[in-house]
Amino acid sequence: MSAPIVEFLVTGDEVMRGIIADTNTQITASKLFPLGLALRQTTVVGDRGEDIRRTLLEVSARADFCLVSGGLGPTSDDLTAACAAQAAGVPMRTHAPWLEHLKQRWAKIRPNETMPANNLRQAELPESAEVLGNPDGSAPAFALRIDRCLFFFLPGVPREHHRIVDELVIPRLLEATGNAVLRSRILQCYGVTESRLDDLVSPIREAHPEVRFGFRTKYPENHLSLSALAPDAATAEANLSRVERMCREVLGSFVYGQDGVTFAQAVGEEVARRGQTICCAESCTGGLLAQLLTEVGGSSRWMVGAFVTYSNGLKESALGVPRELLQQHGAVSEPVVRAMAEGARHRSGSTWSAAITGIAGPDGGTPDKPVGTVWLALSGPPGTTARPAKYRGDRGQVRLQSAYGALQLLREALGPGRAP
Amino acid sequence: MSAPIVEFLVTGDEVMRGIIADTNTQITASKLFPLGLALRQTTVVGDRGEDIRRTLLEVSARADFCLVSGGLGPTSDDLTAACAAQAAGVPMRTHAPWLEHLKQRWAKIRPNETMPANNLRQAELPESAEVLGNPDGSAPAFALRIDRCLFFFLPGVPREHHRIVDELVIPRLLEATGNAVLRSRILQCYGVTESRLDDLVSPIREAHPEVRFGFRTKYPENHLSLSALAPDAATAEANLSRVERMCREVLGSFVYGQDGVTFAQAVGEEVARRGQTICCAESCTGGLLAQLLTEVGGSSRWMVGAFVTYSNGLKESALGVPRELLQQHGAVSEPVVRAMAEGARHRSGSTWSAAITGIAGPDGGTPDKPVGTVWLALSGPPGTTARPAKYRGDRGQVRLQSAYGALQLLREALGPGRAP
Repeated sequence: MSAPIVEFLVTGDEVMRGIIADTNTQITASKLFPLGLALRQTTVVGDRGEDIRRTLLEVSARADFCLVSGGLGPTSDDLTAACAAQAAGVPMRTHAPWLEHLKQRWAKIRPNETMPANNLRQAELPESAEVLGNPDGSAPAFALRIDRCLFFFLPGVPREHHRIVDELVIPRLLEATGNAVLRSRILQCYGVTESRLDDLVSPIREAHPEVRFGFRTKYPENHLSLSALAPDAATAEANLSRVERMCREVLGSFVYGQDGVTFAQAVGEEVARRGQTICCAESCTGGLLAQLLTEVGGSSRWMVGAFVTYSNGLKESALGVPRELLQQHGAVSEPVVRAMAEGARHRSGSTWSAAITGIAGPDGGTPDKPVGTVWLALSGPPGTTARPAKYRGDRGQVRLQSAYGALQLLREALGPGRAP
Repeated sequence: MSAPIVEFLVTGDEVMRGIIADTNTQITASKLFPLGLALRQTTVVGDRGEDIRRTLLEVSARADFCLVSGGLGPTSDDLTAACAAQAAGVPMRTHAPWLEHLKQRWAKIRPNETMPANNLRQAELPESAEVLGNPDGSAPAFALRIDRCLFFFLPGVPREHHRIVDELVIPRLLEATGNAVLRSRILQCYGVTESRLDDLVSPIREAHPEVRFGFRTKYPENHLSLSALAPDAATAEANLSRVERMCREVLGSFVYGQDGVTFAQAVGEEVARRGQTICCAESCTGGLLAQLLTEVGGSSRWMVGAFVTYSNGLKESALGVPRELLQQHGAVSEPVVRAMAEGARHRSGSTWSAAITGIAGPDGGTPDKPVGTVWLALSGPPGTTARPAKYRGDRGQVRLQSAYGALQLLREALGPGRAP
């Protein structure tokens, strides 16, 4: 069978007003996609009966399944169950087993209080609904068919929502897919623009419609996602790996990793694989490079630390950069960045050290050394190398590109046929 | 006039697949709501021409304004401009001024490379479109009327998106509401939960309906936004400043700043105001505190640098922490954090130094010192103080809370009636 059409409907004035972010849909979409249940549309409306009913009916004519979240609580702005009944053209009725469950639940949690009448509303459900329940709350999830679409009505509270999706909804959806299998891969690239990436892979994309191509910018990186959906795992895997191999061939060393690794992590793990260590010497990046390396869990295996020498005085005292170099060449210069890298390696005893000094802006630029002028250096077993760079963008972008540039220096040094 | 109907349309396979979260809509919705521009519906669809065209036409019949985001880039999955033309029933044409702009932009950024043909696509726009431009990128925002609705087509990249919303779209929407004047203020708070913040200000909110209150969490901060919409500037300003004064009174020192200052910036500028300087000694935060302080432009006036001593060896050699302390008490302990702070201050010559050592996780916890155990210290003219903390959350959250905790120590030391 062809892949079923799945939609989401999210309700709630607070989402409409930007007070809360709807995080449920992203998490649930990311669970459904690998199952071959591609989400086709998400609609978000406020707590207005006419908008909820209209959307239910629109969705009912075009989707096979719809996950609805929000509006099942006990308060007066919780309209979803009544709107579902109206859209389906059935009356509401009290669901006796859930009413009993609610009473028992209340007696257990608050034995000395009477349950407010409002709470009884949560046992009022559309007559044709199939109650799915709720392991963690008082609002029951339920399923209801309207026209061609089977709707799953779910509480919006994230903890309740996700448990019900995992335990009660996904098994039902999987049954319906006829076991279609998806295999996907994200190739993470650095050093190539999005349009160049597209140019490089587009002949492959055109020749292989059995795999879907997607592009994503995660500044300053660009990612290529490949997705193969097939009736069985072997076909999906074969299609994916064939196309992945071709893409890797044209992209070469632009690909630094796959499936969620970070650039710093990829470089750091290569350092770790060799039983080596790294230390940083940072001026304009002010700790950003160290922070990218240490946000990786377990980085203490290969990360020694960093000297953030923002002032010239600290470049001298913490790294041993000679004052004459700073005076003669300025802090943003090849001799100083080399001395920083060598000082950090010497003082930390690390295998490698990466150094950065530059002008991140918005102030501090000169005609000679405008904002974006950066010197990078790497010191390690083969010696010390330095590289100048000119970056564009605002302060944050210059800093991020500088940190990536330093990591790239190290990555090149660790590359095939390079330093052992 | 009655309030205009505003909708959002978000496009992108990556959003549909749950690979990226759409954060634009929440932020933009929270800006529109105080202007009386209540968002009526958000529709999210993938990169499928038929879904984009269908949604544009559905929205065109029911909304006054629609903000569309995504799909304006140079790659083959960027379909939005062509779909807009098809939905409006007009041809595409090359927008000569934007083409010229693209060529000049490319020549400036990459003078030695030819612009890929793909990039020219970004100057292909619907014939009846009004180009709004894009101060930060190559994809131009444009406005296009279809049926009763004026659509604003915007890049999805958050930085570009929000600047265009602020500078080019909101003024147009405001005109449509009858030239009402808006004055707004964001009071940025640290150390108070969202529900406590709501409790504290709710009597003021109820007594002053002329000002709209909004809440937003920017982890680990909570912000209160106040918006006064009035027919003239004097009334809007008077209403806003009266309510702001009352809120500041009940919130006291929870408010650290307003209107976009960062927490590190607020603390750093207080250090600068006194002609003093700061240095950091970081273990588990790995440079995050230094990075928060140095992302502020001009921070070289008051930021000396940081010792990121991730390994115990570097704690000894770079900061002079005695080996016996590390062996007796462990790296996460009061004696070590004090020695780190004092070492950093001594070796950098800074007025103040803030030190952090802790267990950020996911590994490294013990029954005695579970993940989230952190020691903070501040050394300065009045001496050295240390404070233990237990933070909840994942590695990133523990690190961020630790950096904030260290800044808060310094903020308290600089507070009224404290250290000179």
